[in-house]
Amino acid sequence: MTPPSNGQAAESNDHLVQSDNPEHPANLIPSLCAKFWTLGWVTGTGGGASIREDDLVYIAPSGVQKELMKPSDIYVLSLAAQAQSLDRRNRVYLRSPPSYKPSQCTPLFLAAFTKRRAGCCIHTHSHWAVLVTLILETQGAGKDREFRINNIEQIKGFGKGFEKSGNLGYHDTLVIPVIENTAHEEDLTEFLEEAMDKYPDTYAVLVRRHGVYVWGDNVHKAKTQCESLDYLFQLAVEMKQLNLPWITDIEPVTPRKP
Amino acid sequence: MTPPSNGQAAESNDHLVQSDNPEHPANLIPSLCAKFWTLGWVTGTGGGASIREDDLVYIAPSGVQKELMKPSDIYVLSLAAQAQSLDRRNRVYLRSPPSYKPSQCTPLFLAAFTKRRAGCCIHTHSHWAVLVTLILETQGAGKDREFRINNIEQIKGFGKGFEKSGNLGYHDTLVIPVIENTAHEEDLTEFLEEAMDKYPDTYAVLVRRHGVYVWGDNVHKAKTQCESLDYLFQLAVEMKQLNLPWITDIEPVTPRKP
Amino acid sequence: MTPPSNGQAAESNDHLVQSDNPEHPANLIPSLCAKFWTLGWVTGTGGGASIREDDLVYIAPSGVQKELMKPSDIYVLSLAAQAQSLDRRNRVYLRSPPSYKPSQCTPLFLAAFTKRRAGCCIHTHSHWAVLVTLILETQGAGKDREFRINNIEQIKGFGKGFEKSGNLGYHDTLVIPVIENTAHEEDLTEFLEEAMDKYPDTYAVLVRRHGVYVWGDNVHKAKTQCESLDYLFQLAVEMKQLNLPWITDIEPVTPRKP
Amino acid sequence: MTPPSNGQAAESNDHLVQSDNPEHPANLIPSLCAKFWTLGWVTGTGGGASIREDDLVYIAPSGVQKELMKPSDIYVLSLAAQAQSLDRRNRVYLRSPPSYKPSQCTPLFLAAFTKRRAGCCIHTHSHWAVLVTLILETQGAGKDREFRINNIEQIKGFGKGFEKSGNLGYHDTLVIPVIENTAHEEDLTEFLEEAMDKYPDTYAVLVRRHGVYVWGDNVHKAKTQCESLDYLFQLAVEMKQLNLPWITDIEPVTPRKP
Repeated sequence: MTPPSNGQAAESNDHLVQSDNPEHPANLIPSLCAKFWTLGWVTGTGGGASIREDDLVYIAPSGVQKELMKPSDIYVLSLAAQAQSLDRRNRVYLRSPPSYKPSQCTPLFLAAFTKRRAGCCIHTHSHWAVLVTLILETQGAGKDREFRINNIEQIKGFGKGFEKSGNLGYHDTLVIPVIENTAHEEDLTEFLEEAMDKYPDTYAVLVRRHGVYVWGDNVHKAKTQCESLDYLFQLAVEMKQLNLPWITDIEPVTPRKP
Repeated sequence: MTPPSNGQAAESNDHLVQSDNPEHPANLIPSLCAKFWTLGWVTGTGGGASIREDDLVYIAPSGVQKELMKPSDIYVLSLAAQAQSLDRRNRVYLRSPPSYKPSQCTPLFLAAFTKRRAGCCIHTHSHWAVLVTLILETQGAGKDREFRINNIEQIKGFGKGFEKSGNLGYHDTLVIPVIENTAHEEDLTEFLEEAMDKYPDTYAVLVRRHGVYVWGDNVHKAKTQCESLDYLFQLAVEMKQLNLPWITDIEPVTPRKP
Repeated sequence: MTPPSNGQAAESNDHLVQSDNPEHPANLIPSLCAKFWTLGWVTGTGGGASIREDDLVYIAPSGVQKELMKPSDIYVLSLAAQAQSLDRRNRVYLRSPPSYKPSQCTPLFLAAFTKRRAGCCIHTHSHWAVLVTLILETQGAGKDREFRINNIEQIKGFGKGFEKSGNLGYHDTLVIPVIENTAHEEDLTEFLEEAMDKYPDTYAVLVRRHGVYVWGDNVHKAKTQCESLDYLFQLAVEMKQLNLPWITDIEPVTPRKP
Repeated sequence: MTPPSNGQAAESNDHLVQSDNPEHPANLIPSLCAKFWTLGWVTGTGGGASIREDDLVYIAPSGVQKELMKPSDIYVLSLAAQAQSLDRRNRVYLRSPPSYKPSQCTPLFLAAFTKRRAGCCIHTHSHWAVLVTLILETQGAGKDREFRINNIEQIKGFGKGFEKSGNLGYHDTLVIPVIENTAHEEDLTEFLEEAMDKYPDTYAVLVRRHGVYVWGDNVHKAKTQCESLDYLFQLAVEMKQLNLPWITDIEPVTPRKP
């Protein structure tokens, strides 16, 4: 059998996206994206989501209305097959939908799966995320490369980091690196990977004037970390409007009765 | 058969709005408008939407509660028949609902269909659109006739222009012309057409203190461009509240690994 | 048959609230209130709605969770019977629900029905309405007794006034009177009636630090006027945050091609 | 039968969370939490809710996605059994879900049930609540330990206090105590109980940079008080943005016709 020259698998492999189980990635991605659309995270076909199960990666296509996506719209690729490819940009899909193009987010999702063994990665265009990166631009001396906030309960919604157990504490400072946007989304990949190397424990990277990538060990963790982060971004913007600082020095309260 | 004198077709032609296909324009306009009502785009019977399929134009009526619209509420007219009419304001409907009046937006929708060969046109009263036109009023020297924003990822949600392929880039400046509102909505038509002539590549025109008209080659493109634009209008208002400029000069980031 | 002494009809008259027609007032009030709850108009059992059909008035009870209301929760009274009552505060209900108390809004709804022949009256606690009355408080010299806005398209959503045909125009100034809140909601009635006398063409009265009463000839008009008003209140608050004036002097734009 | 050593009941007691009645606590907690998720109160697994029926307490587990909760996820414990336990921190559950951990909110919910005989307690991370506590931080001299607001109609949504009948009036000042957040949520318990002792009539306690606990005699009262409070917190933040004071001195309006 001659390999297909156009990056498409010879067989349709439609069975990979057909399941009666609502928890199957091909069903879960559409239902998650419909929810994200309502939250304003994937407006106007922006943003996206991807789930990895063992070797298989399921990805929403480019240019789809996220609240109307169907399981049959989903791309599937193999991490192992992809790793053997000499050209990172030539991706071989096990299964492609008939009428869409692959998402430009694909190599960024793959970075989370390969460098962090994530089970799910979510990309939002939430305007709270964009506003946070814009507010940071007004701060000089390299301070705009990190979003930092502490002493907010919702910070507990984040894991301590890659291969570490437990979650951040109330007094811990959550640090999310910010990378500059590039003209082409695929070109973000090397900068996202750099940020992952420099901040090995982060579960998210902000992209200036663009949005945020958030991942987690599984769908549950990626989604709830993404919700917690959007909550903190919204709070941070509202704090800025009220002239309240994101970082404070608070004396821990000690319980009297141990 | 004597032509009807009252601008109504002699036959009811109800079959034109009866279909089991949810993608039929007579079904799609109500479902779209219900979604738009939830987004705050068509509050209090304001705003509307129209779809063109070849020669036939489907239009929501005037004064209808947009989240409650039914396929039987839809007007249908023929572009060819309309073109032969000597009086632009005398429109002959192939099919009229029994208990509504035609939308005052009709000639504005027709402008998008005839001058830009659009397949769908959406009119919203989104208060983000209205606020953008109000903020622009505070800027003198004719600067209030254009909304301009650049270096925001969501700008990629717009096509490059009429009969051009491809989309705008991240560093491109999105320019949306602003026309002044008139006492009667039909009177906007000539100014909308003027703006289309002056800005041949725009897919939208803002109407001061009123809202926005957005179109696209088909329903998908009109809707996603309208969502992207509303996203940008909201972002622009929030940027204004935070004293962040809409236009910036940013050095493009070049990928190191080509 | 001895008349009931406790203001309750001897018979249950449950048939008055039982109908398969979704447009029946006893079905419509719950579905409207569920929608209003989502809009933030009737949070925490605040606000309410009433519909009149000829002599019969249907009213949501006091203290009910508005998104959970059922047709069997509805009160029904007769306008004619109420008019014969010597004591305005002693209302005889044709039908009462078993486990609720009558709404304190009842005499205010009745004022709209008797003084304006309204078919529906809506009372919201929308915080946009409350904020508008709070902003007005900061303006002295009696200027706080009226909300005024002009040159916004959505103003066209209001009728010209009681027994007048046609709607307000874009350049017309919408004037909504503001009355002071009283400790007991029933005590608002005389002030609401005074405002109706002083502003015979208004379809709404703002209540300081409380909310708004909006009515219309029928459910459609009351609801769409209430939506348009809430839209304008929200816009007015956002304009205030951006230092944009509510009243402007704009030269009308004349169409060149008549 | 030897008592289980790990804080789990020997029997599964699954029948305690199985009912066809939508008003059963095991059904009501998931439907309430789904609604709260939509309101932004329980984002990212934050917040929670608990219902008491006589001796039995039903509690949402820790770490669950609140809009996806199922009746089988609910913990059940006995107040009487808990009262006999020498160690407050060792709780014996009559029924535990197979795959979750108990909520850290449990001792705080129990405080409302035992010290106030509440029938329901709700904990939200609403960012309006958090913002109010942040704004209060900017006020010195101990003024940051109470949220105070008066002369807003929605204040009537609160009961006068523990074992008192009737509700607050329009001119009454609603006072909600604020306690400092602790690193571990369970450690809040003693401070919450202290606040209950110091403010015996309050139905809510704010937790700095964290959220709010709200309770009521039953589900209806806890939920509507929580809604009213969130409404007031949102209003208070918006008033702050517009430089409007939370406390004012207003002359009561007296009705002329008694």
